[in-house]
Amino acid sequence: MNVGEHPTAQTHAHGTVLTSAPQDAPVDRATAAARRVIDAMLRTDRGNANLDRVAEELNSIADHLEEHAPEVAERLIDMWGGEGVTRHDPVTGPENAIAPPLVLAGLDDGSVQGVVTLTLPYQGPPGCVHGGVSALILDHVLGVANAWGGKAGMTAQLNVRYHRPTPLFEPLTITGKQMSVEGRKIHTVGDIKTETGDVCVSVEGLFIDAAVPRPR
Amino acid sequence: MNVGEHPTAQTHAHGTVLTSAPQDAPVDRATAAARRVIDAMLRTDRGNANLDRVAEELNSIADHLEEHAPEVAERLIDMWGGEGVTRHDPVTGPENAIAPPLVLAGLDDGSVQGVVTLTLPYQGPPGCVHGGVSALILDHVLGVANAWGGKAGMTAQLNVRYHRPTPLFEPLTITGKQMSVEGRKIHTVGDIKTETGDVCVSVEGLFIDAAVPRPR
Repeated sequence: MNVGEHPTAQTHAHGTVLTSAPQDAPVDRATAAARRVIDAMLRTDRGNANLDRVAEELNSIADHLEEHAPEVAERLIDMWGGEGVTRHDPVTGPENAIAPPLVLAGLDDGSVQGVVTLTLPYQGPPGCVHGGVSALILDHVLGVANAWGGKAGMTAQLNVRYHRPTPLFEPLTITGKQMSVEGRKIHTVGDIKTETGDVCVSVEGLFIDAAVPRPR
Repeated sequence: MNVGEHPTAQTHAHGTVLTSAPQDAPVDRATAAARRVIDAMLRTDRGNANLDRVAEELNSIADHLEEHAPEVAERLIDMWGGEGVTRHDPVTGPENAIAPPLVLAGLDDGSVQGVVTLTLPYQGPPGCVHGGVSALILDHVLGVANAWGGKAGMTAQLNVRYHRPTPLFEPLTITGKQMSVEGRKIHTVGDIKTETGDVCVSVEGLFIDAAVPRPR
């Protein structure tokens, strides 16, 4: 990631939003609606008599969206245009229906933080967040923490510790902070806490100052 | 997880499918269609003039599904009915539109394996799988490997190493294997390989023989 174009703790104010906020744009509204469908599909009665009609309608929407899609190579160039924050990642991306999406702000102690409530699509053990989903969110948050810290890179190693089950349906505070940069090695930590401050999952990440080039 | 009801390497044949295969059921068809919408939404032209109509249609589908949804507590009991494989997890679940879904088989060397091709919703670096998505998939695969090994548990620690970028749009082979059980501690390893056998991501997991009770 080229962090030259990213806000950092050195250049920007406490509370700067670091992720791409959902906008009043048709694609953001459509993605938010798709997110509702994903969640409701898991909650609806399995015997819902209209599920075949729902399948037909969703396939027809997918057909329409695909008919208006450029080639993937072309779309990738568009997706990665500019140097700023992208809008499509699976954690914070307002254009990705898989993303909760988490919104992160940079704090003046060098950390980044956001609050998110996860629902049934993210379930692992009964009523709890999937351990792999916690790892997905934390990996992404460490990446954003690195950009805010001023030096970003690619994940080389992630050490995730699970302290207690992480609840669904409750606000979770997700934090990440860059701890040190030694040459090309970047050390970053993070955690997921409940509203009462209990640490459910913590992570230590090693990142390497490298990047896959943006397609042009 | 109660593995008494799960197939294991000791009791079942090489190639036993361990995940819930998509069925010819309305909810599976509707979820597969939702998966197409998620993917196509990321690929469609941002200027697609019909995105507001798509948003309306998706919201109307979500309204309908929600109208036919029981209370979450009741739905959770239904979701976790029986002791067998569930259908809703975010990696292999045919009823979860977030899941690719990955299908895993148990092999007679004690490992579990599956092949999956990931697309734009799972992107991290340009054209590559998000490092957190790799962690999500591997955490889940280690859990399935534990069930196949005969002793399942909850994730306590996950150590993920990233060796090279993991490509999107190519078949990836995901493997997991239980290595040892010492008292309540279960050690399990896994990796993600390209078609040519290059290891992109490897993982070591420590699991504890414990479970969140299934809601009744």
